[in-house]
Amino acid sequence: MIDSSLVVFNSLSGKKETFTPLVDGHVGMYVCGPTVYNNIHLGNCRTFISFDLIYRYLKHLGYKVRYVRNITDAGHLENDEDVGEDRISKKARLEKIEPMEVVQLYTLDFHRILEKFNNLPPGIEPTATGHMIEQIELVKDILNQGYAYEVNGSVYFDVLKFNESNSYGILSGRKIEDLIHNTRTLDGQSDKKNPQDFALWKKAEPQHIMRWPSPWSDGFPGWHLECTAMSTKYLGDSFDIHGGGMDLKFPHHECEIAQAEAINKKSPVKYWLHANMLTLNGKKMAKSTGNNILPMDMFTGKNEMFKKPYSPEVFRFFMLQAHYTSILDISEDAFKCFRKRLLSFDGGRK
Amino acid sequence: MIDSSLVVFNSLSGKKETFTPLVDGHVGMYVCGPTVYNNIHLGNCRTFISFDLIYRYLKHLGYKVRYVRNITDAGHLENDEDVGEDRISKKARLEKIEPMEVVQLYTLDFHRILEKFNNLPPGIEPTATGHMIEQIELVKDILNQGYAYEVNGSVYFDVLKFNESNSYGILSGRKIEDLIHNTRTLDGQSDKKNPQDFALWKKAEPQHIMRWPSPWSDGFPGWHLECTAMSTKYLGDSFDIHGGGMDLKFPHHECEIAQAEAINKKSPVKYWLHANMLTLNGKKMAKSTGNNILPMDMFTGKNEMFKKPYSPEVFRFFMLQAHYTSILDISEDAFKCFRKRLLSFDGGRK
Repeated sequence: MIDSSLVVFNSLSGKKETFTPLVDGHVGMYVCGPTVYNNIHLGNCRTFISFDLIYRYLKHLGYKVRYVRNITDAGHLENDEDVGEDRISKKARLEKIEPMEVVQLYTLDFHRILEKFNNLPPGIEPTATGHMIEQIELVKDILNQGYAYEVNGSVYFDVLKFNESNSYGILSGRKIEDLIHNTRTLDGQSDKKNPQDFALWKKAEPQHIMRWPSPWSDGFPGWHLECTAMSTKYLGDSFDIHGGGMDLKFPHHECEIAQAEAINKKSPVKYWLHANMLTLNGKKMAKSTGNNILPMDMFTGKNEMFKKPYSPEVFRFFMLQAHYTSILDISEDAFKCFRKRLLSFDGGRK
Repeated sequence: MIDSSLVVFNSLSGKKETFTPLVDGHVGMYVCGPTVYNNIHLGNCRTFISFDLIYRYLKHLGYKVRYVRNITDAGHLENDEDVGEDRISKKARLEKIEPMEVVQLYTLDFHRILEKFNNLPPGIEPTATGHMIEQIELVKDILNQGYAYEVNGSVYFDVLKFNESNSYGILSGRKIEDLIHNTRTLDGQSDKKNPQDFALWKKAEPQHIMRWPSPWSDGFPGWHLECTAMSTKYLGDSFDIHGGGMDLKFPHHECEIAQAEAINKKSPVKYWLHANMLTLNGKKMAKSTGNNILPMDMFTGKNEMFKKPYSPEVFRFFMLQAHYTSILDISEDAFKCFRKRLLSFDGGRK
């Protein structure tokens, strides 16, 4: 038995807990990867660098770690909603290329940037399109269990039904009553019994090109479903660690819990770990406001935010001085200071 | 119109032909990628470097090229036969890891090595597991056309039936009569009507872990089927160039032609291009005889074959001095000579 005093902050309990894996000596860890429709931003990088540290530390402690991090290449719609255009299809339409060319372009960018940050690759890197059959089988299972319903070729998860015998909101701390009152009813969602229900399978509109045949319609899986399909395929019905960015806690991870519990009647994940946001000069990073910087532009120095270039090592070192559950602010002053500290370690190479 | 005098050797006609694309200004090119169960060997590298040159040259001429190169991560059995263990599963069993961990390990190795050779990535890099539904749909289509039959949960392509109205052997120049007499009947192939038939879908034995549900059985697609599924999905029923190593001409590419013609009633590919073998010190390269060298061992110099290390640039430069349709022999003497020539170009860096 690995004797460690590793303590993790579990989002599920809201407390620090001593880490004890389900199977002695082994750790199963799933981390939500990127939707590959755009260059990876620094906020994402923080999440993946944080879990790289956790992965390395678990291995250092002597655990045999199966680390699965997915690539979302289908099913993730605009605004994380159940309606709208697929993010990858939209990019493909705007750039006049094939959706899978978009996927290739930004998967390569993602790998390139994380390699620069000296991240280790995960042991398995599954894709949503690589698990279509598995996702369709899960929809069948959830329908069979009575926690989903079909309307006009789409299948939705019945949140109220699930909540009768389970706790929807257990991870994010949201109350079902508040969700019922606060969920917007959007155009095109009129198929749903209740607005808080979420799509497991969506019938594709005629213009939606990323589509697959299914028992219900030519369509595509719901975004939340893919992570349940991929995590349970490679890590089993219950596994140790599920990680991701804080913004994924609700609805994405909440829905993952609901889907898995609907099928397996048990909690899928022992420890939920969430990496917090990165801000830039004290403000939220956003492309729309211009308060933003891409990793490659930071390395080369070709950007409007900083006067000098900063290496991946400086960024990684800076990231790791703060706990990943805290909001962290990046600024040129902070980077200058951390570059100096890094120089003091390695004799001036950086 | 792009006015070029590009001439290619088309394996289908056995002649040099002037290259004229199906759609003016555009080229669709599919190249068979690796089965990711092992480190990529130098022979494979020759194929991919050759098609990298072709890709770059087509772009240089002004064509908009859609270059698709697949990753085989399921369905490729030992000895390229219809029976035996899946290559990836076997490696996973031997190394006591998950098949998809094998896939990740050797996909990363493949990408790393090709990047060292300065190959451009293809525009789309589809996987066999990423196209399970598409493959199942193709099997249905071929069954509907009457060119396949189901036996005990497996589906086989009926070569004799196909040959009544088409020419099986058109690419490799093999005669159906010779094939009938020379095809071995192996244990476990007794389901087939005729030994030259090939599997489109195989029912999985209990110990076969890489399996998917289908209308016929829990099983897996035939190796030849995946390339038909992926090439036609991204390039259409007819496209310009299909490439691969010479060893894939028969049966792999011959079967691809048969599958596509069975469904679409037309030839899928205008120009078939095949890269020839690489030998080492005049003999066939093979792990079993020890007459073998891995790319990374060549770069580092840690190998039994050569006294000195040779860079990826030297190998690439050496590759490109011979036509890809000729057998090419590598040796330390040849590399020494090409390193000198390369030095004369770039001022001594290599």
